[in-house]
Amino acid sequence: MSSRVPLGPTPDAAVLRSRVERARTAAAGTGLLIAPGSDLRYLIGQGGGSFERLTTLVIPADGVPALVVPKLEAPGYAGVPLDELGIEVVTWVDGDDAYALAADRLSGADRVAVSDFTPALHVLALRSALPKAEQVLAGPIVRELRMRKDAAEIDALRTAGAAIDRVHARVGEWLRPGRTEAEVGADIAAAIVEEGHTMADFVIVGSGPNGASPHHSVSDRVIESGDVVVVDIGGPVPEGYFSDSTRTYAVGTPRDADVAATYAVLQEAQQAAVDAVRPGVTAESIDAAAREVIAAAGFGEYFIHRTGHGIGLDVHEEPYIVAGNEVLLEPGMAFSIEPGIYQPGRWGARIEDIVVVTADGVEPMNQRPHELVEL
Amino acid sequence: MSSRVPLGPTPDAAVLRSRVERARTAAAGTGLLIAPGSDLRYLIGQGGGSFERLTTLVIPADGVPALVVPKLEAPGYAGVPLDELGIEVVTWVDGDDAYALAADRLSGADRVAVSDFTPALHVLALRSALPKAEQVLAGPIVRELRMRKDAAEIDALRTAGAAIDRVHARVGEWLRPGRTEAEVGADIAAAIVEEGHTMADFVIVGSGPNGASPHHSVSDRVIESGDVVVVDIGGPVPEGYFSDSTRTYAVGTPRDADVAATYAVLQEAQQAAVDAVRPGVTAESIDAAAREVIAAAGFGEYFIHRTGHGIGLDVHEEPYIVAGNEVLLEPGMAFSIEPGIYQPGRWGARIEDIVVVTADGVEPMNQRPHELVEL
Repeated sequence: MSSRVPLGPTPDAAVLRSRVERARTAAAGTGLLIAPGSDLRYLIGQGGGSFERLTTLVIPADGVPALVVPKLEAPGYAGVPLDELGIEVVTWVDGDDAYALAADRLSGADRVAVSDFTPALHVLALRSALPKAEQVLAGPIVRELRMRKDAAEIDALRTAGAAIDRVHARVGEWLRPGRTEAEVGADIAAAIVEEGHTMADFVIVGSGPNGASPHHSVSDRVIESGDVVVVDIGGPVPEGYFSDSTRTYAVGTPRDADVAATYAVLQEAQQAAVDAVRPGVTAESIDAAAREVIAAAGFGEYFIHRTGHGIGLDVHEEPYIVAGNEVLLEPGMAFSIEPGIYQPGRWGARIEDIVVVTADGVEPMNQRPHELVEL
Repeated sequence: MSSRVPLGPTPDAAVLRSRVERARTAAAGTGLLIAPGSDLRYLIGQGGGSFERLTTLVIPADGVPALVVPKLEAPGYAGVPLDELGIEVVTWVDGDDAYALAADRLSGADRVAVSDFTPALHVLALRSALPKAEQVLAGPIVRELRMRKDAAEIDALRTAGAAIDRVHARVGEWLRPGRTEAEVGADIAAAIVEEGHTMADFVIVGSGPNGASPHHSVSDRVIESGDVVVVDIGGPVPEGYFSDSTRTYAVGTPRDADVAATYAVLQEAQQAAVDAVRPGVTAESIDAAAREVIAAAGFGEYFIHRTGHGIGLDVHEEPYIVAGNEVLLEPGMAFSIEPGIYQPGRWGARIEDIVVVTADGVEPMNQRPHELVEL
């Protein structure tokens, strides 16, 4: 036995019902099979658990949606207003053919879409259960809804942004010479929860040369005076929406002479990208706005990742702020802007805010100053 | 940015190399594509993270295995002796076609197997990148290896079993009338970590009527004198192997008059299943051994789940102890034996130990008494 139940308030049944209907409309004749996870949470207010037993929300092109769920796990959905959502519950027990139960609801469909994080175990079994249907991803369909946040979702992102800002405001309590990154990281993780998140989803404390590795987590490296330290942290608030913010700290005066001038370029690049955000421009143009400033200063080869990622019920979702993504920004889209400059073997820096596209520009969810924070 | 790095010791390179070669042999000409997760941890000692970017261990039928990994995430595998394992590292950056990089290593394969928990996002893209190959699951291949634990793995399960036994020994410190299940659960979760786990993976405190719902987690129900309480808890130890043990407690004298006699049946059923374990018998025969005792006593309809599940680097894995599973038990197989009897609306009970099949019988990983624990 094992069980994990996401916490937090559920959107109104009317909101959820409208999401399910909009997903059906966006699917345009394709049947949807939504596995536990953030897509399911978006549609019914409960993400469920994801185990080896099949749970799936079946949304046919016509007819009544159904939640196919192991009988044992059905009580986990007790808080979902399934009746008000017009969703039938179909339970199954060990020994039943759960895939056939799901497939029955989509018999005759030419195309069925499975949610992006459905495990291969279920993907292949559902393909066998629906041999005549073309199998595609539901991501492109559901993302059209999820990418455009409503007012309540933006409120949740504001709550998350304020919570992680309060943690960054306290970093000076913990980050000092003689402590390891792991010790500092543990304190930050506790504060992430104290300040209103349901958990610390990720904590990066990249000191000195570790700051030059963007996906470093924490290590036993002892922080020294003169270190530049990248602190990239976040987690979900009870509503399910994520925070994600990076600030760069200097422990005393930076030992490397190039820090101040390089950091000034980074700060200019991050601001240029934020200032470029408005409805009607492409996602890739925001990436380009940051990249051009960094390249013009001669640091192009040290900015080794995309500028940002969408955020919401997932910490990484659409729209990605990356070359090649020609999605046009619209009000309600939310994403990170997080350029970095990484000097291998010496130090790195990154500045990251979450921003939301407004009717005529941009609203940052994070309010902490962008300057290098000398502790 | 986000990053999670599993903790704990890595098996010797020689052990890992042998696992990779045995996986290749077991695949019998099928190319393997192993996503981050427990299969990857089993094969290279590091489970990695699972994000929207493709990471996959490609094991071709012939030729050099390769770890295809985003350049940004490659440092997360720094602790893996990839050279000694004979695994090439193929990094990619945003904009590259990672699926083509993986497919190139399997060109000409008639069949490719993806690991069971590969997200649909990658499953469908890999299918498109290898259009001539039949796509199947790697689970049936890798499980043949993982299902048979070696001595070091059994040691890790013993470590996990002893750690969770120490938590059960302390349940009386926290479980008392007037406290909520959630409060008790939080104390237990902290103790799970204190006693040597890297995290509390699941905590079920099912008091009174909640005990009759096998997948209940915790709630705000206040525990009362007379309650029967199911406590089902576990998590991974640093080696990555899971504990999972259930004991049933009585807070004072049980209010329901049928508890003692029913519990005696459950205890007999659990023992009968443990006693039935030896090499050469089927997995389903262990389920039957427990079920027959419960059915004979007239409680068959109240035992609403399978008797157990395999355990190792996953909390649920093969072999499943369930009707229809004709797998023959062999030395080194590890699984739970956890019958339960559930009286809807009143109370429930479950007894769960992890056991390992030995050369001539069974070794339980848990040593706590099986009696109803009156607190």
